[in-house]
Amino acid sequence: MSSSEGDNYLFDPELLKNLDWNSMNYAVSPFITNEDPGESWLLIRPLKIEDYDKGYLQLLSQLTSVGNVSRSDFEKQYWNMKKAGGYYVTVIVDTRNNQIIGASTLITEFKFIHNCSLRARLEDVVVNNTYRGKQLGKLIVLTVSLLAKKLGCYKMSLDCKDSLIPFYKSIGYKCEPGNANSMMVRYDAPKADSPS
Amino acid sequence: MSSSEGDNYLFDPELLKNLDWNSMNYAVSPFITNEDPGESWLLIRPLKIEDYDKGYLQLLSQLTSVGNVSRSDFEKQYWNMKKAGGYYVTVIVDTRNNQIIGASTLITEFKFIHNCSLRARLEDVVVNNTYRGKQLGKLIVLTVSLLAKKLGCYKMSLDCKDSLIPFYKSIGYKCEPGNANSMMVRYDAPKADSPS
Ligand SMILES: CC(C)(COP(=O)(O)OP(=O)(O)OC[C@H]1O[C@@H](n2cnc3c(N)ncnc32)[C@H](O)[C@@H]1OP(=O)(O)O)[C@@H](O)C(=O)NCCC(=O)NCCS
Ligand SMILES: CC(C)(COP(=O)(O)OP(=O)(O)OC[C@H]1O[C@@H](n2cnc3c(N)ncnc32)[C@H](O)[C@@H]1OP(=O)(O)O)[C@@H](O)C(=O)NCCC(=O)NCCS
Repeated sequence: MSSSEGDNYLFDPELLKNLDWNSMNYAVSPFITNEDPGESWLLIRPLKIEDYDKGYLQLLSQLTSVGNVSRSDFEKQYWNMKKAGGYYVTVIVDTRNNQIIGASTLITEFKFIHNCSLRARLEDVVVNNTYRGKQLGKLIVLTVSLLAKKLGCYKMSLDCKDSLIPFYKSIGYKCEPGNANSMMVRYDAPKADSPS
Repeated sequence: MSSSEGDNYLFDPELLKNLDWNSMNYAVSPFITNEDPGESWLLIRPLKIEDYDKGYLQLLSQLTSVGNVSRSDFEKQYWNMKKAGGYYVTVIVDTRNNQIIGASTLITEFKFIHNCSLRARLEDVVVNNTYRGKQLGKLIVLTVSLLAKKLGCYKMSLDCKDSLIPFYKSIGYKCEPGNANSMMVRYDAPKADSPS
């Protein structure tokens, strides 16, 4: 559980190859993909432990409260995810300054229904505010969505604020009529800002 | 991976003891709990492999399409869940005829946000139609919700149809204003009936 295991990725980076971008080309213009993101300094890859030092948590703090996560807390959770399997935290790196500038997570879930199927969830989507409006949000969400498709998931779902419905609609997500409600109960003191 | 492991539960049944029912007593009348469910023939416990032969899948087919799941498919998925951890499939048994008459699933998810927290989800809630309207729905949902609280989850969420909002409201779930949307994309041919 030390950082010497650092060349490891949270999941196999080969999985991000040959995703079915053709199915989404209507949504991305100019056309970019995770393997060809339009700029030579953009790299899309699985999370690594070293991303703790590359601003991954600072990026997440643009989404919601992160708190005071020590390196050992981070490593512990990384290994919890890796051991459990089904956690596909994917990041965008600006290789010019080695900073994490975008992230999203695919989580897969084993089901008994639908022929013992696999279901997918989208979580913790964020693009660094100085990089927004350049399709990087679409890129990072579609990367993990197409990964879910490749893994054979029968559906992928997400919960979001009203203001983000147009963003997700533009990349193929739908609110199914009569079946589009997300409800929750919170067990802690409410956090400052918890969109997800 | 054979049925000889059958006395095993999907998760430790001790976890279902001493849940904080007092916090929910406003919602349950007459007051019942998973340990004292009001009728001597009701038993609430974690899923077992043997539940394949006790109508668990037939029960799920009242919720959505299950398909043709063989015993070995079922066992394989059971062990996938057990190995991954975080799957708390909980059932209600009618011990008079040894049939599974209710079920719900808590799934926990490791997060980096909120101090490397644990998040909870409610899935696959169903009560056999001949047993509905007797608080068993509340009982099975609250059992796993209180388990999530006991495990230290900071929130628990669910997706549901419009018609079930009053049911979940009656047991403490809320639609947070401006942040209560569930969206999805389906990768397969649409299933006949897929509320969850
Ligand atoms: C949501 C987010 C990831 C989008 O990132 P981005 O890189 O700016 O997105 P893109 O450039 O790919 O934008 C794609 C489209 O969605 C629109 N869009 C992006 N963010 C939006 C928002 N917050 N509200 C409404 N529309 C938005 C863009 O205008 C663009 O539309 P267009 O193609 O018609 O011009 C980014 O705004 C973000 O990190 N927000 C804060 C965290 C957050 O809310 N995450 C989502 C939690 S559910
Ligand atoms: C939803 C379900 C589990 C409820 O089970 P149940 O044992 O009948 O529930 P309870 O007896 O605990 O009912 C609790 C309350 O919710 C109400 N309620 C139950 N099901 C409801 C429904 N489908 N629509 C609206 N209200 C409902 C009851 O009237 C009761 O209200 P009351 O306490 O004011 O009288 C059951 O109807 C079911 O299995 N439905 C099919 C599967 C399904 O839709 N699952 C949920 C997927 S999100």
